[in-house]
Amino acid sequence: MIQSFTDKASPEQGPPRLKLLRDAMISADLDGWLVPRADVHQGEYVAPGDERLAWLTGFTGSAGFAAVTAQQAGVFVDGRYRTQVRAQTDADAFQPIDWPEVKLADWARSALPDGGRLGFDPWLHTHKEIADLTATLKGSGISPVPHANLIDSIWQDRPAPPTGAITAYPDDLAGKTSADKRADLAEALREVGHRAAILTLPDSIAWLLNIRGNDIPRNPIPHAFAVLHDDARVDLYMHPAKLDSLPENCITNGVTAHPDTGFPAALTLQLSPARVDPASIPLAIVTALQEADVKPAFADDPCILPKACKTGAEISATREAHLRDGAALCEFLTWFDAQAPGTITEIDVVTKLEQCRHATGKLLDISFETIAGSGPNGALPHYRVSEASNRTLIAGDLLVLDGGGQYLDGTTDITRTLPVGDVGAEQRAAFTRVLQGMIAISRLRFPQGIAGRDIDAIARYPLWLADQDYAHGTGHGVGVYMCVHEGPQRISRASEVALHPGMIVSNEPGYYREGHFGIRIENLLVVQPATALPGGNSADSAARKLAFETLNYVPVDRRLIQRDMLGAPEISWLDAYHADCHAKIAPRLAPDAADWLARATQPI
Amino acid sequence: MIQSFTDKASPEQGPPRLKLLRDAMISADLDGWLVPRADVHQGEYVAPGDERLAWLTGFTGSAGFAAVTAQQAGVFVDGRYRTQVRAQTDADAFQPIDWPEVKLADWARSALPDGGRLGFDPWLHTHKEIADLTATLKGSGISPVPHANLIDSIWQDRPAPPTGAITAYPDDLAGKTSADKRADLAEALREVGHRAAILTLPDSIAWLLNIRGNDIPRNPIPHAFAVLHDDARVDLYMHPAKLDSLPENCITNGVTAHPDTGFPAALTLQLSPARVDPASIPLAIVTALQEADVKPAFADDPCILPKACKTGAEISATREAHLRDGAALCEFLTWFDAQAPGTITEIDVVTKLEQCRHATGKLLDISFETIAGSGPNGALPHYRVSEASNRTLIAGDLLVLDGGGQYLDGTTDITRTLPVGDVGAEQRAAFTRVLQGMIAISRLRFPQGIAGRDIDAIARYPLWLADQDYAHGTGHGVGVYMCVHEGPQRISRASEVALHPGMIVSNEPGYYREGHFGIRIENLLVVQPATALPGGNSADSAARKLAFETLNYVPVDRRLIQRDMLGAPEISWLDAYHADCHAKIAPRLAPDAADWLARATQPI
Repeated sequence: MIQSFTDKASPEQGPPRLKLLRDAMISADLDGWLVPRADVHQGEYVAPGDERLAWLTGFTGSAGFAAVTAQQAGVFVDGRYRTQVRAQTDADAFQPIDWPEVKLADWARSALPDGGRLGFDPWLHTHKEIADLTATLKGSGISPVPHANLIDSIWQDRPAPPTGAITAYPDDLAGKTSADKRADLAEALREVGHRAAILTLPDSIAWLLNIRGNDIPRNPIPHAFAVLHDDARVDLYMHPAKLDSLPENCITNGVTAHPDTGFPAALTLQLSPARVDPASIPLAIVTALQEADVKPAFADDPCILPKACKTGAEISATREAHLRDGAALCEFLTWFDAQAPGTITEIDVVTKLEQCRHATGKLLDISFETIAGSGPNGALPHYRVSEASNRTLIAGDLLVLDGGGQYLDGTTDITRTLPVGDVGAEQRAAFTRVLQGMIAISRLRFPQGIAGRDIDAIARYPLWLADQDYAHGTGHGVGVYMCVHEGPQRISRASEVALHPGMIVSNEPGYYREGHFGIRIENLLVVQPATALPGGNSADSAARKLAFETLNYVPVDRRLIQRDMLGAPEISWLDAYHADCHAKIAPRLAPDAADWLARATQPI
Repeated sequence: MIQSFTDKASPEQGPPRLKLLRDAMISADLDGWLVPRADVHQGEYVAPGDERLAWLTGFTGSAGFAAVTAQQAGVFVDGRYRTQVRAQTDADAFQPIDWPEVKLADWARSALPDGGRLGFDPWLHTHKEIADLTATLKGSGISPVPHANLIDSIWQDRPAPPTGAITAYPDDLAGKTSADKRADLAEALREVGHRAAILTLPDSIAWLLNIRGNDIPRNPIPHAFAVLHDDARVDLYMHPAKLDSLPENCITNGVTAHPDTGFPAALTLQLSPARVDPASIPLAIVTALQEADVKPAFADDPCILPKACKTGAEISATREAHLRDGAALCEFLTWFDAQAPGTITEIDVVTKLEQCRHATGKLLDISFETIAGSGPNGALPHYRVSEASNRTLIAGDLLVLDGGGQYLDGTTDITRTLPVGDVGAEQRAAFTRVLQGMIAISRLRFPQGIAGRDIDAIARYPLWLADQDYAHGTGHGVGVYMCVHEGPQRISRASEVALHPGMIVSNEPGYYREGHFGIRIENLLVVQPATALPGGNSADSAARKLAFETLNYVPVDRRLIQRDMLGAPEISWLDAYHADCHAKIAPRLAPDAADWLARATQPI
């Protein structure tokens, strides 16, 4: 079993640790200290020794930060974590802050005196983050002050950094050799006059070198730094214990590995200008470059866009991974439908689902902690069941089940909402609206240049008409045997990145009624050139139009659909989707599951 | 008759005038010269003496600019004007450029030598425009050079500036006195420490002082500059001939009028910092302030947002104006439907429609040149019929009819697409898609904070599914007895301004098949707090939700609707809308028009 159900939160340890931090702040002559969730690689999942936010506050969500002063300790979390943060932190010691509605700078203006010194670890905050903070604090008299990490100085028994082995990622799955990727990026660097690019995002490095890592759970990426030179050579900096695992074809092919202890000194020897991505580069690296008179050239990490635009080989591979994963989910659903209300718990659900994925014989990891939220737990979009929160599924419940697998050929992610016994009309009406939004995105054809921001509202429209909504984006980018959340594309009001062919994005509208129930339906989509429409004339041809190819083929529960709310095109889409589910998945199933699938995919 | 049908374009005058301009460039030691459409007030309509772009090139569209070098003369126009620019300019002398796809800086890099001097009139270009141009030209060796206007130096018989009289706008229609507006804005200036705001937008000044002007056609605004001080006093600068017309209650009430000849010198006497809007302030004003050591504070024109959020009085007034205008349109449509194909022209249509508006007894002006594009002319979104282009309406045509009136109580704008005889299936299918988009926006309810960019695609969705689209925004802001195009709100991918209660915005999706036909359907909408939904629970209440109130009540032509393409909610909306049209407009009509309306508003 990969997933565990221990309760990670320990709110009672917060107050004494907060006391230690405030003592350290006094010693360091600081009036405030920032504790980000992020590590030096700005990843969503971090190693145990980087769980500084959880260690201090108890809050274990995947995004957020704390800001501590002598009197206050704000924990800034977004819409996904508003309820969770209250459950995991000591209410006397910590104040949950609605972020990004409340800006750190505004909070700091009220929490810190004029002249206040707000300390932070420059390895854990990006150049852009501190530039923005400095700009928004202008006129307040408060200054951000870089300082060695205070949490690390007080954290006894802090876990050591991970030393997971590096493995080669097959060229036939990647669809392009590392040498070709490096040659293309080096040419692009030369064209704009950048002598090198400093890479600090592990998935950028993994993509560039066709390697994978094993440093943090759920994400097969290596903790490392790299410098890509404009002649296509790469200097790679990793924990010394990992150096021996580097695949031979990397070392002999223009990649030189070094212990990461040498990385700061190596920065001072780069040629100018050295490209850094302000959105992800630690401020400490920019400072080190500037102190050594190496001019930073601020521009996107050059790996991000080509990594997001998957090759034909990657798309073929992840199609197969999603069919395999869909078959596992259908085996699970066959079992689930046979369980009477009141007889199984959320942990039973997570355990059985992981067993079904494991039974494929190809599961390398789950792609994130499976979310199995029943009844009121389903209203927490990122709920993670623990022994303490575990709940028996009872008649009338909805179950939000969101999970995925890491397979060598793909990273999967899918959400289905399932009824336990008979479910009320309010739930079925909201479910149908969520489904309408999910279908609207699935059916979309759109011109090139359209960004996630431009289409996010299309998924919300049916909910908005009923004054309903969801406090998260409609979709996130997804990797191929890589991180289940990857940029730059998203379907979100916050994303102005144009959607390009080959990008994978999730389509997961939802609805959450706090204290009552949750709903989410999610498929992954690949952006593809649109195929021609029958009868399309030349002026309106499909040329330069884009559309979404669906990757997941698992039925949407027909018992939750209020059919008379759907229009004819929605019904046509759903019936065709279900017919595809049957055609693609049935051959992969045991007889009882194939019977279940045949029933579940009948026209509505 | 207000509208004229003379052909404004004179392509043959372009080449000799271009020669004069190039001679002037040589004398001024300039390698290039910019000719914007905009005047010093950045308005969409300009006075005859400001028609520099049309004078030079022949192009009479409402947006665009020319860039002239010794060898090239690019005319930069957006999607609305791609066809028109070719018809109006001499192809040997001028090169149409697709803007904004092609950036001026990129064009200049290929058209000008390293070290090239690109001249411009600093009164006609905003601070932001030149700052952006300077930034994008960085590294090219080309520099923008401010210079006295070269067109003005060569334009013989250039018309004198307008001297239209100022009139008071009644407080009961405005809903707020000028004194109250000035007091509120002055308080806001004091809060952010701005000593004054320099106003150069005529509609801002008209709104602030509750006045209207008569300087340019279609827009009842005064050409003027103003300085709003942080004690609520206003210094107003106008053509000397207009000073006597200033309403007495302005002069006695904290407003001091001056000849505009004194404006440049007055700039040097302002207190620091003086607020200027970088998006609309002429660069010359910023330069004058800086040379006098007056610090410019760059921020929005403080009138723009409160002007856009109409008062209850303004909304009531414009509701009445739209019902009056709708009745006039129904009288027109009654006449139109009685005309046999092949018997009337586009000019007949424009003439009759203006007569119907005039017959209300309240028409002060049309709000823009009526667009009456039949057959292929309808494919030009901003078509203006002239004697030369005039076309007889024949069976099978679609007619795009887009017009509006200026009434003391409101500015109207409405588009209907009308069939002439029997119309083909392709046209009816596209019409139905356009209608679906228009209905989708009309039905929308949405959270506060949503901007036009977030919802623009909702109007395009039905068209996108058929690989169709329109090359303009979905909607523009509209004033109340003011400009028919006003900011800051728009329904457009280019608009990130949140929609606020009281804003008026058009909803006008369309479809244009070049050389064949055009379609557009337009109503104006007012952003309103949403009314509660039946059965809404407290967690999902209408609190903080917004919705659109429709202002126009004129039937959509039922003969063009392919009913089986519509869903039940769309049919319900349309039938309810038509029932409202009948209830609101029938009492205002003559008997024959009332009969027509009863037929036109039957359920589909």
